[in-house]
Amino acid sequence: MKISARNVLKGKIVDVVKGATTAHVRIDVGGTIVTASITNEAVADLGLEKGMSASAVIKASDVMVAVD
Amino acid sequence: MKISARNVLKGKIVDVVKGATTAHVRIDVGGTIVTASITNEAVADLGLEKGMSASAVIKASDVMVAVD
Amino acid sequence: MKISARNVLKGKIVDVVKGATTAHVRIDVGGTIVTASITNEAVADLGLEKGMSASAVIKASDVMVAVD
Amino acid sequence: MKISARNVLKGKIVDVVKGATTAHVRIDVGGTIVTASITNEAVADLGLEKGMSASAVIKASDVMVAVD
Amino acid sequence: MKISARNVLKGKIVDVVKGATTAHVRIDVGGTIVTASITNEAVADLGLEKGMSASAVIKASDVMVAVD
Amino acid sequence: MKISARNVLKGKIVDVVKGATTAHVRIDVGGTIVTASITNEAVADLGLEKGMSASAVIKASDVMVAVD
Repeated sequence: MKISARNVLKGKIVDVVKGATTAHVRIDVGGTIVTASITNEAVADLGLEKGMSASAVIKASDVMVAVD
Repeated sequence: MKISARNVLKGKIVDVVKGATTAHVRIDVGGTIVTASITNEAVADLGLEKGMSASAVIKASDVMVAVD
Repeated sequence: MKISARNVLKGKIVDVVKGATTAHVRIDVGGTIVTASITNEAVADLGLEKGMSASAVIKASDVMVAVD
Repeated sequence: MKISARNVLKGKIVDVVKGATTAHVRIDVGGTIVTASITNEAVADLGLEKGMSASAVIKASDVMVAVD
Repeated sequence: MKISARNVLKGKIVDVVKGATTAHVRIDVGGTIVTASITNEAVADLGLEKGMSASAVIKASDVMVAVD
Repeated sequence: MKISARNVLKGKIVDVVKGATTAHVRIDVGGTIVTASITNEAVADLGLEKGMSASAVIKASDVMVAVD
């Protein structure tokens, strides 16, 4: 599958925390930690675990820009 | 200002392309290009230009996870 | 690639309209038209054209529920 | 109320699962299941229950496109 | 139609600017201007014009919190 | 930090409810309550509490428009 989302950041999962319905997955992308909030079902469906290679995928319209 | 968004990725702007109402800003974050689709007004308001230091800011609930 | 997004709706592209930076792609999903607003770059990168098989992909946290 | 969101997919609720603060509502849209992640408050406010007619509402800018 | 989105802010449209595919609609909500970026099609479909009563509708998962 | 998000609505926090992983923060913006669904980590990181001054921050592409 190839997706229109412009941002596919390759990395490694460093943490998976499941809540009641929502899980937080942290991915190390070249030394920067990216946090994803996804459904528990997605975690189970993809078998996400600490240490796995995974990408953070973000649609361009969901990215903001900040300056100091 | 400190924001709740979990992902603030520091980098440098490599490209600003303005459309009729929507602009695309590309930020080099440690060698990875992150694309943001924002309003032309925001580009003008923040004075965004190629070469500036800037961060890509992303809410955790807008991040998906993909595996091969 | 397998993605955490819970909604992957298979269909056929019925329309691609490019703007200055943003394109609108309409996909027929079992008789229902789903409209996606994505970057022109994504349209070019994926080679999206009328008549192609394609899926509309939506993160669960971007779906609202309405009742009459 | 008429809303700007381009995608209003009519269907029937097949499942409501409440978590601590976030609920998952699954809607059968012409044989395809669409999952919505919304607040528990919204579920209570709209009285969402299995078997009810309901629509999945999605803003066009939240729809991505994928090809095989 | 009643929607799960937790934030429905009533106001009056002060500005509609159409681009090639994307429009910006500004709504005065009790003295605060809220900007919406929506499709030109939605503007036409709802007949949005300066001076009309309208609400800004925002899903709770799209709201961030900032402190000084 | 200055952010590209077009909507920064100043107010006061009236309620913080933490779930297993996701919290709901309600902000009074000039008499209108705005609900934000954010991570528990963000609540802890920013030290969000009832009575604090805070802003609801919303990207323009996440705002829809509704008419009666």
